[in-house]
Amino acid sequence: MRAVDVIVKKRDGGTLSKHEIDFFVQGYARGEIPDYQAAAWAMAVLLNGMVRQETIDLTLSMSASGETLDLHDVAPIVVDKHSTGGVGDKTTIAVAPMVAACGLAVGKMSGRGLGFSGGTLDKLEAIPGYRVDLDVEQFKAQLSRVGIVVSGQTKRLAPADGKLYALRDVTGTVPSLSLIASSIMSKKIAAGADAIVLDVKTGRGAFMKTLDEAEQLAGIMVDIGKGIGRRVSAVISDMNQPLGRAVGNALETAEAVDTLRGKGPADFLEHCLAIGEQMLILGDRAADALQARALLLAALESGRAFDKLIAWIKAQGGDVSVLGDPPSMSAASIVRPVLSPCDGTISAIDAMEVGLAAVELGAGRAKKDDPIDHAVGIVLDAKVGDHVSVGDNLFTVHANDVSRYEAVRDRVLAAYAWADQKVAPLPLVYRVIT
Amino acid sequence: MRAVDVIVKKRDGGTLSKHEIDFFVQGYARGEIPDYQAAAWAMAVLLNGMVRQETIDLTLSMSASGETLDLHDVAPIVVDKHSTGGVGDKTTIAVAPMVAACGLAVGKMSGRGLGFSGGTLDKLEAIPGYRVDLDVEQFKAQLSRVGIVVSGQTKRLAPADGKLYALRDVTGTVPSLSLIASSIMSKKIAAGADAIVLDVKTGRGAFMKTLDEAEQLAGIMVDIGKGIGRRVSAVISDMNQPLGRAVGNALETAEAVDTLRGKGPADFLEHCLAIGEQMLILGDRAADALQARALLLAALESGRAFDKLIAWIKAQGGDVSVLGDPPSMSAASIVRPVLSPCDGTISAIDAMEVGLAAVELGAGRAKKDDPIDHAVGIVLDAKVGDHVSVGDNLFTVHANDVSRYEAVRDRVLAAYAWADQKVAPLPLVYRVIT
Repeated sequence: MRAVDVIVKKRDGGTLSKHEIDFFVQGYARGEIPDYQAAAWAMAVLLNGMVRQETIDLTLSMSASGETLDLHDVAPIVVDKHSTGGVGDKTTIAVAPMVAACGLAVGKMSGRGLGFSGGTLDKLEAIPGYRVDLDVEQFKAQLSRVGIVVSGQTKRLAPADGKLYALRDVTGTVPSLSLIASSIMSKKIAAGADAIVLDVKTGRGAFMKTLDEAEQLAGIMVDIGKGIGRRVSAVISDMNQPLGRAVGNALETAEAVDTLRGKGPADFLEHCLAIGEQMLILGDRAADALQARALLLAALESGRAFDKLIAWIKAQGGDVSVLGDPPSMSAASIVRPVLSPCDGTISAIDAMEVGLAAVELGAGRAKKDDPIDHAVGIVLDAKVGDHVSVGDNLFTVHANDVSRYEAVRDRVLAAYAWADQKVAPLPLVYRVIT
Repeated sequence: MRAVDVIVKKRDGGTLSKHEIDFFVQGYARGEIPDYQAAAWAMAVLLNGMVRQETIDLTLSMSASGETLDLHDVAPIVVDKHSTGGVGDKTTIAVAPMVAACGLAVGKMSGRGLGFSGGTLDKLEAIPGYRVDLDVEQFKAQLSRVGIVVSGQTKRLAPADGKLYALRDVTGTVPSLSLIASSIMSKKIAAGADAIVLDVKTGRGAFMKTLDEAEQLAGIMVDIGKGIGRRVSAVISDMNQPLGRAVGNALETAEAVDTLRGKGPADFLEHCLAIGEQMLILGDRAADALQARALLLAALESGRAFDKLIAWIKAQGGDVSVLGDPPSMSAASIVRPVLSPCDGTISAIDAMEVGLAAVELGAGRAKKDDPIDHAVGIVLDAKVGDHVSVGDNLFTVHANDVSRYEAVRDRVLAAYAWADQKVAPLPLVYRVIT
């Protein structure tokens, strides 16, 4: 078999066999197939698509290209969650301890933010001392001892995906549903979770702009799970406006901590419950969503979820003294509310614009390896459906630089839209796919 | 502008501007855009196509990526011909002196054979001493002095095409009509000819298998010529069976020499006349095909075409003593006729199989830079439409190795097909596009 023959087959609309996909993926991972052949192949895959079995085979091959974790010596069922990325998405920090407090082991390898989309590792690193570089033994030991661990993905997991992902970024081959789905799922599978809840975002501030695209991506990933015997469900959730109120690393971590104290925004709590319900159902802790919700609320109200947070952060070296009431992580030097210039009901807050404004403040990265400022960000004081009068607080900018403050103030103001009539709040969850 | 944005635009079916194409082509030629981005781009071009203006802009940009020749100080009009490649295609060696003998300057940079398709340089090198490595000054000096020159393409002409061509070969991006057309035309334009006759082959032993594909490719190339103010016409000719009788380097050169002496196969002479007619018309030496044909036949019959051959080969260092009657170039050690196993009319001779059989004998290259054996090859004693009886000569194998002789004997026998009823000879020319 030659790499060029595999490219030609996909170019001509053929269906690749498991053997052909394995040959190509492993050859690429080992450096025997060069980047230029992988780039031509990826473009052919993007333009001609892959059928279900090809996508499953691709996922399994990338997953098998490096180390794979088996967590069954740690817990009978380990659950993971994954978000496709959005603005203000601090869900993991709140939902992981909620679910772990219900007795289900949560083992997650997480990522960094890039562009408008934040990353859980960056948010957790707003807590001084928090370690994201656990090795496999440390990951398993903490999962066993504390029942919860959130660390960075080691480079030894699914290295074929790591290599292909970097190549796709510079060759215009990112937006292929098969390539996106297999990239996400190959890492999740290699990381060893038995059950995976996918939070597939859709809307202005998501990679999937339309509900239809989000449903397609979710369907493919759930299908991959079925094809390989892992429990997978997908929650399709709104990302037209930012999730919750805080956007920016320390601000988001603080909001997640507040939520575990019962003091978070209602929309964010509701989103966490929707994700947590599916985690408990997949993890055999609840028969249905109602039962799961009752367990999650009990864990919250009893303080067990908050205690689990503290145990988790301590176990990973974090300084829990900053998680007081209110949390006291790094603060920005300029904290200024921006007032509504008019009366009306908020009809839209463009999540993409808010995400890019946070990057402009220094909260995110334009390029991989850019440094980030944990303190800066934006807190939305009014969200879609809220009525505001002239002079009411609309949002608050946390900045460390006056000129950036001014640019972001104007940018976020322009991301708001008002209506004269009443506007219904945006839905949080569109659909659950199991 | 970023290379990835140009890729994305073509991926999404957009039309690239002249500026975008220039940015990409020159960046690639200079090594600033890496192979993997060019590979993704080429696959997107192949799958999404290019409109007329993009193909013209691509051709001009590749042509301008290196040295370009201006031959107007040598002759008012210089004519060139180009074949898209086939089996037994020794046309240049016969037609170039025929046309030059009519007073039209013929300046051609030619290529080597690869795979089933032979190359004119390899055939000419069967003549001891023949030099294919003229520099630009030598090329122009000979064109001025002798009126005819056929040398190898210098690497300084259209280097972007040279680089992209090698990349396409290993990334499954060869069969794009826009990429093929711009590759051919960029080199021809850089080489300085005012008038270019394209011999576009179609059939079993051609790159374009169907007449429709060949017409499309020819149409694009003629269109490029119109778009940039060069005179271009295309002759769409048959390549279902090999052209003429000889396949193999010295054998083909000898056949071309015989043809200039009036002793060549009728079908090959007819093909040369069809190409030569267009060359004379484009070069303003004849008003129409009839007048052109009369001039060509006069040049042949008077011996002026043969004299021009001798002058040309001498000028390029070739030992013309081997061009006697019959020519006496390197001979193979095994020369054996293969006899027809049955009675009937030849209904097909698969040109691709004959071409690959010649490669198997050592006449061609499986890989670039493979050595070749000038002496070996196959001579077809019966062609489509000929009636043969059991025991008649069907073809003759010229080999330097018994086991290869045997393999090729069986392979070429299997390439023949017989019919009981009469079979019309194949057409030579399907269409001329101007």
